[in-house]
Amino acid sequence: MKKLSHLDKSGKARMVDVSGKTATRREAVARGSISMKKTTLALIRANQIAKGDVLGTARIAAIMAAKRTPELIPLCHPLPIASVSIDFVIDEVSESISIESRVKVTGQTGVEMEALTAVSAAALTIYDMCKAVDKGMVISDVMLIEKTGGKSGPFRRSGAS
Amino acid sequence: MKKLSHLDKSGKARMVDVSGKTATRREAVARGSISMKKTTLALIRANQIAKGDVLGTARIAAIMAAKRTPELIPLCHPLPIASVSIDFVIDEVSESISIESRVKVTGQTGVEMEALTAVSAAALTIYDMCKAVDKGMVISDVMLIEKTGGKSGPFRRSGAS
Amino acid sequence: MKKLSHLDKSGKARMVDVSGKTATRREAVARGSISMKKTTLALIRANQIAKGDVLGTARIAAIMAAKRTPELIPLCHPLPIASVSIDFVIDEVSESISIESRVKVTGQTGVEMEALTAVSAAALTIYDMCKAVDKGMVISDVMLIEKTGGKSGPFRRSGAS
Amino acid sequence: MKKLSHLDKSGKARMVDVSGKTATRREAVARGSISMKKTTLALIRANQIAKGDVLGTARIAAIMAAKRTPELIPLCHPLPIASVSIDFVIDEVSESISIESRVKVTGQTGVEMEALTAVSAAALTIYDMCKAVDKGMVISDVMLIEKTGGKSGPFRRSGAS
Amino acid sequence: MKKLSHLDKSGKARMVDVSGKTATRREAVARGSISMKKTTLALIRANQIAKGDVLGTARIAAIMAAKRTPELIPLCHPLPIASVSIDFVIDEVSESISIESRVKVTGQTGVEMEALTAVSAAALTIYDMCKAVDKGMVISDVMLIEKTGGKSGPFRRSGAS
Amino acid sequence: MKKLSHLDKSGKARMVDVSGKTATRREAVARGSISMKKTTLALIRANQIAKGDVLGTARIAAIMAAKRTPELIPLCHPLPIASVSIDFVIDEVSESISIESRVKVTGQTGVEMEALTAVSAAALTIYDMCKAVDKGMVISDVMLIEKTGGKSGPFRRSGAS
Repeated sequence: MKKLSHLDKSGKARMVDVSGKTATRREAVARGSISMKKTTLALIRANQIAKGDVLGTARIAAIMAAKRTPELIPLCHPLPIASVSIDFVIDEVSESISIESRVKVTGQTGVEMEALTAVSAAALTIYDMCKAVDKGMVISDVMLIEKTGGKSGPFRRSGAS
Repeated sequence: MKKLSHLDKSGKARMVDVSGKTATRREAVARGSISMKKTTLALIRANQIAKGDVLGTARIAAIMAAKRTPELIPLCHPLPIASVSIDFVIDEVSESISIESRVKVTGQTGVEMEALTAVSAAALTIYDMCKAVDKGMVISDVMLIEKTGGKSGPFRRSGAS
Repeated sequence: MKKLSHLDKSGKARMVDVSGKTATRREAVARGSISMKKTTLALIRANQIAKGDVLGTARIAAIMAAKRTPELIPLCHPLPIASVSIDFVIDEVSESISIESRVKVTGQTGVEMEALTAVSAAALTIYDMCKAVDKGMVISDVMLIEKTGGKSGPFRRSGAS
Repeated sequence: MKKLSHLDKSGKARMVDVSGKTATRREAVARGSISMKKTTLALIRANQIAKGDVLGTARIAAIMAAKRTPELIPLCHPLPIASVSIDFVIDEVSESISIESRVKVTGQTGVEMEALTAVSAAALTIYDMCKAVDKGMVISDVMLIEKTGGKSGPFRRSGAS
Repeated sequence: MKKLSHLDKSGKARMVDVSGKTATRREAVARGSISMKKTTLALIRANQIAKGDVLGTARIAAIMAAKRTPELIPLCHPLPIASVSIDFVIDEVSESISIESRVKVTGQTGVEMEALTAVSAAALTIYDMCKAVDKGMVISDVMLIEKTGGKSGPFRRSGAS
Repeated sequence: MKKLSHLDKSGKARMVDVSGKTATRREAVARGSISMKKTTLALIRANQIAKGDVLGTARIAAIMAAKRTPELIPLCHPLPIASVSIDFVIDEVSESISIESRVKVTGQTGVEMEALTAVSAAALTIYDMCKAVDKGMVISDVMLIEKTGGKSGPFRRSGAS
């Protein structure tokens, strides 16, 4: 039976020991979405056309949260992140905004958690900025899409476009 | 047409001015879930029976993240949080773990973002601790269930049990 | 002779004791500017017209820095900030950008440092985003313009418009 | 026409991707000054002779702020800083204190922002500790003096001594 | 049998709910000491007479750590600290430095943890600054001396001077 | 006479310049203990048998504090920590809990401070969670046990088991 790497033999939490690993180039892509009322989406779209501050603010929040991942996720390693980029797609049909993050590092361990944390922070920031008009927004489908680099080899979510 | 409160007249981001508001008791409840393989759920359940460190660690991450919400969400107000509690339910049928947070404060604005941030941090921590065996886990249905206190009145998500 | 309030009788650093003060409404306004090449200013202005992300990012940095002032300035008190707003004016004549912050709180001490920290963070962020094309930019005239509330009475910088 | 490196093709904020860069030794020197009343300068000088806590506190604030630069400046990369030193010169003629920071790193990108952030934090801390006697102090001339290392080559501000 | 207030009925960690408590004035005093070689003590004393930067730096570290207690201690409440002061006594006989902190707040819960955290941070900073000459230093007797305010009534350590 | 490395020639605080050092593998082990009433120890032991949340929470606090050491200890270098592990031993005879931390890194300087900070954070968290039933707990014997790697060579506390 497989074991959870973040627990020691007696079931207690630990940071995985990466001291024997070589620093290599690694990359991770994560996605998620936030659904909302059609009218909320229209307000964001209107602002996007004007100044872009809802999505612009969410992008900055995501980049800054990626850098602080080891402060938030107890067993994550601190890493000298080399790049974070965030993209949004407004989807009128599903009445939602899709969020995609891409994070790169040269380090002893990967940046999956940084990518997932960035997506979560972007979604939470959109919620915060629109909650006065729409408290029913829902954050969903936050998932890892792809990772490359590292000993465990590449991962690509099946079915991801 | 309604306006986004976190944008000024010209569409630029701002913190909402709550200086004229009275500090009152406020509470928020949020939920979310993380789905995974049946075997991953079994590993967590086995650990839960022994020492509980996967869910125990996620709970601490959630409480600590709630306290740091204004550092993560750019336009959130700092608040002297009075209480945070986190509950998990392992759901064998849907192969997922449900997360519920409850946050209380006496303050000039509400704690919806603290409750949502706590749920997100718990879900991300579970992902981190189990990702060595299951990279396909998905975080979904992160939403506000209930809020009380404040001038805008109570909110209760319709259909929430 | 006057004394420095942040030093005790023997000249050692201390936090001023505000435990006997009443929490009242307080407000502070600070300003500063960053000068640069005409071509750099043109690039920011062009971006401003398009998406606004240089000044938009600087605004978010300023708001977030204001909230973290007590972590940066050793003897500052933590305060539940009620509002932060940031304005920029592009001045073609002096080839600079003026930054103004306004911070409000209901607290036992004032928010002058929060306002000054916000201005500094905005200026540093503009520097960071433009340094690839202009390393010679200079941040100047960071100063308190006005403060109201508190026992020491209002302050208004003479000559400030 | 030159482009701002921190904006992508569509004008949106991004962290510059340094993942392809080699880690090399880099250094940056920044300066700034804070002007004040003659009597305020005398109080600091008197304390300096005694215990040095105004400038000593400002020095610690500057070193600590340098380490936290990537948390404050949204698009800055986290870097394993190797050294920070801070010097002050009390200038009786111009009734001001000059601040100089020197920061070193072995990394994929430079430490200009760390040096500038250190100077700003030192100046803000001096302001904080003296504001009870002099609210009119002004922070000026915060600028990069020198940088070495990195692909873009050395920079030396013309006219800097 | 008494219960641990930070555990719920099923033994899980929680923040104690203070939302029903009134904000009152509270104060806590903590102490601790760090023992070292006679020669190390002499080096600190020599610096103390000159510039005071070992103990001056430890004092700033202690004040800043007190403000960040809720970020370090998982179940602590964030509090708007009103005052922190730190005193050192060099004790030649026991070859150690005694540290005392005093913290005040008007809040819904007490500041015992802030006072103890301040003492610990001061001791760790002294260790850091002297470890090149004395790795055998030992931090001991970190304890609460006194607390006033709050429903549970005053506490005074028996035998404390 | 030896000198304190964290002070410059004039006695002022500085970060030691490690820019000329090679990154090598380093490790540090620290210990400490917290003594308490027999009944408090019994409560922790009972919880330990059930869910382990007192010591589980203290372990997470210790790991997270180790990662934040350079934010707390003013002159510490930021380091990409590779591993942190924490062990507790409940000692019925001395009515205390022993805490041991082990930290690893590949870096330009060592992790003694990270190991000592982890032990302190664990002890403070135990104090926090039990203070409602036992305010007299005392944290003692926080010391470095062993360090390996680095130019100054290995250190092993004499008499440590």
